[in-house]
Amino acid sequence: MTKIFQEQETDQSELLQKAKKAKHASAVLAKSTTKQKNHALRAISAQLLEEQAYILTENNKDVEVGRQNEMSESLVDRLKLDETRIQDMADALIQLTKLADPVGEVLEKWERPNGLTMSKIRVPLGVVGMIYEARPNVTVDASSLCLKTGNAVVLRGSSTAIHSNKAIVAVIHRALEKSELPVESVQLLEDTSREAASHMFKLNQYLDVLIPRGGAKLIQTVVQNSTVPVLETGAGNCHIYIDETANVQMAIDIALNAKTQRPSVCNACESILVHQAWADKHLPLLLSALQDQHVTIHGDELVQKLSPNVIAAEEEDWGTEYLGLEVAIKIVGDVSEAIEHINTYGTKHSEAIISKSSESVDQFFMEVDAAAVYHNASTRFTDGFEFGFGAEIGISTQKLHARGPMGLPALTSTKYIIRGNGQIK
Amino acid sequence: MTKIFQEQETDQSELLQKAKKAKHASAVLAKSTTKQKNHALRAISAQLLEEQAYILTENNKDVEVGRQNEMSESLVDRLKLDETRIQDMADALIQLTKLADPVGEVLEKWERPNGLTMSKIRVPLGVVGMIYEARPNVTVDASSLCLKTGNAVVLRGSSTAIHSNKAIVAVIHRALEKSELPVESVQLLEDTSREAASHMFKLNQYLDVLIPRGGAKLIQTVVQNSTVPVLETGAGNCHIYIDETANVQMAIDIALNAKTQRPSVCNACESILVHQAWADKHLPLLLSALQDQHVTIHGDELVQKLSPNVIAAEEEDWGTEYLGLEVAIKIVGDVSEAIEHINTYGTKHSEAIISKSSESVDQFFMEVDAAAVYHNASTRFTDGFEFGFGAEIGISTQKLHARGPMGLPALTSTKYIIRGNGQIK
Repeated sequence: MTKIFQEQETDQSELLQKAKKAKHASAVLAKSTTKQKNHALRAISAQLLEEQAYILTENNKDVEVGRQNEMSESLVDRLKLDETRIQDMADALIQLTKLADPVGEVLEKWERPNGLTMSKIRVPLGVVGMIYEARPNVTVDASSLCLKTGNAVVLRGSSTAIHSNKAIVAVIHRALEKSELPVESVQLLEDTSREAASHMFKLNQYLDVLIPRGGAKLIQTVVQNSTVPVLETGAGNCHIYIDETANVQMAIDIALNAKTQRPSVCNACESILVHQAWADKHLPLLLSALQDQHVTIHGDELVQKLSPNVIAAEEEDWGTEYLGLEVAIKIVGDVSEAIEHINTYGTKHSEAIISKSSESVDQFFMEVDAAAVYHNASTRFTDGFEFGFGAEIGISTQKLHARGPMGLPALTSTKYIIRGNGQIK
Repeated sequence: MTKIFQEQETDQSELLQKAKKAKHASAVLAKSTTKQKNHALRAISAQLLEEQAYILTENNKDVEVGRQNEMSESLVDRLKLDETRIQDMADALIQLTKLADPVGEVLEKWERPNGLTMSKIRVPLGVVGMIYEARPNVTVDASSLCLKTGNAVVLRGSSTAIHSNKAIVAVIHRALEKSELPVESVQLLEDTSREAASHMFKLNQYLDVLIPRGGAKLIQTVVQNSTVPVLETGAGNCHIYIDETANVQMAIDIALNAKTQRPSVCNACESILVHQAWADKHLPLLLSALQDQHVTIHGDELVQKLSPNVIAAEEEDWGTEYLGLEVAIKIVGDVSEAIEHINTYGTKHSEAIISKSSESVDQFFMEVDAAAVYHNASTRFTDGFEFGFGAEIGISTQKLHARGPMGLPALTSTKYIIRGNGQIK
């Protein structure tokens, strides 16, 4: 049909072959029942446990290559599997079987004056392209969420996890052979070159969506180069704004929690904005609480005056995701200045106000442009499990399709079904 | 912050200046009340009527240039405004004030065991980029739908309608001056070069979504080149499948209606698939009914045997959107073959089955991958007004965000609002 189609037909790359298989599988998956899908998930869970030794042997190859290449210990930790992690994957698959299947759900139903009856139902997206970094557990996670929602998946993991990913996908395939779902539903690209990934960015014909999972650089590369629709996840430059009327202990507890409880994640706090009047009285308390937890502080001039251990904040600090025990602190005149700062430097992820003023809170809720806005709670709650979704594909920081933590429905589209008795226009 | 940001800061192109103004305006629009927005829409309606003579004079300049350049009469017809068309635009604006404002709607509300209360509310998208062809009424239509949903808009129309578009936007600006909405909410690019459009495709920093409206070529250019999320609209290679058990008169009436009532639109039928058994008895009736309406028929071998006036269908006919009085007809063995054909050549827009078999209908509904699937009704009903939405931004043929006719909610995103009393993780 289109020129693009013909060109791709002659290019039998690994990606193209596997994307086509996934596309074919997606048609079968779309009509699979919840029972068939849950049965397959249980089969994968059992197979992972049964072939644990094989997975660990293959994973160890990646870890050894990583150590030879002087991979950092934190990356090795993300890469390394053990019995507990495999058990966690197997358990998560069983948990997933207990969640409601969104496919087939009737979202709306109405009748038109001409007698047409209309309904809007949830259907799978089709084929999901998943591009991710070192963690091999994403291989199981992405595959299982896609299967539960009737989608085929083309996985493109990191070269550093290629042995682990191949082993896990081989195990998934052996489990799918015992199920009624197509084995071709889960495809792993063994070619982890940049060229293969670039080709994936443009494969609109076979891929319905691309989901990047990893660091800000990976995500931006996918967003900036893909013509396939992208579900943008991840980068979080989250703020805690402490308003004039904030309860002192609550503000300190929330700021500390949001900054230090797990600093490497996207919903951790990176900047604290403090109302001038609150700062005058209580900022030294907050600074020492942070410093007790070994947090390096980058502050504006007013903050620097209060503590000799504050580093001068540069313009770029306001836009930095430290992902570690560092924070930027700025004094602001009022809630409007805080909102302006957040909307300038934030990544539209999670933003919190600590305040007793309902007026300030209402303004903050209305004007801050972010997926999740909090009053008197830590930004760390932005998470599919904390939201009660029972599963999470990622946290969307874009505005189309899905925003914030994405549960199973984010992996679905809709279809209008119209029943008539001969209506013409 | 990012490199892209800095580069763009130094490039003060018309697009960039106007996109920035739109972005600033969007923050004010996001907190505008329904009353303020409806007041602005009424002001625009009145101003259009008041300045009708000016708009018609400017429109006439475009028509004259078009005629000098030997523009086809059908394009001139799309371009040309008259008193009736301006009255229609003014009336549509008043209709729009009567529709519910989706912004602020609470979509979900729940409480977590830790006491956090969660709600999901509708918010505007931000800034919408609209890229469209000759019709100047899209300028009013797009602007008003965006304003109603609290979005700013950057309009990029065709060079062939530039006088009309400038006049209409000047009129909109004069109306906005009398309203409480920012005048900067509606921006028209006067630079209609391809370079300016290409720049728009990549302006992720200021544009939240791009909506192309026009022919298949325009839409594919936008889809294939944009990194800004796109709402893909339009192309419709729609099929009518006449099953073995189809009522003869109903099948003929629906096929005729879908093909001939308005052949130039995306929900018109382009191919008819006919079950072998029905064809054996009734195909000559269908063919002569179509030929009576001057429809050129491209048929497969079996169809050709039945009528001397049938042109042999080539492979490319199955994928062609004729948008005129032409149709491709193919005989199929069963509903599965019809579905396979539709999923191979269709554009996932609107597909209909005419049948008395609930089994065939269920299979068709389940397996055909399209925005709208019909039983015993014409595909011509795929339209925001026919669906009862009261407005339409376009018909989405993509699977993310919105699928099928898009009403006002398609121009919104969501935000999670979380209220706590000191919760930390």
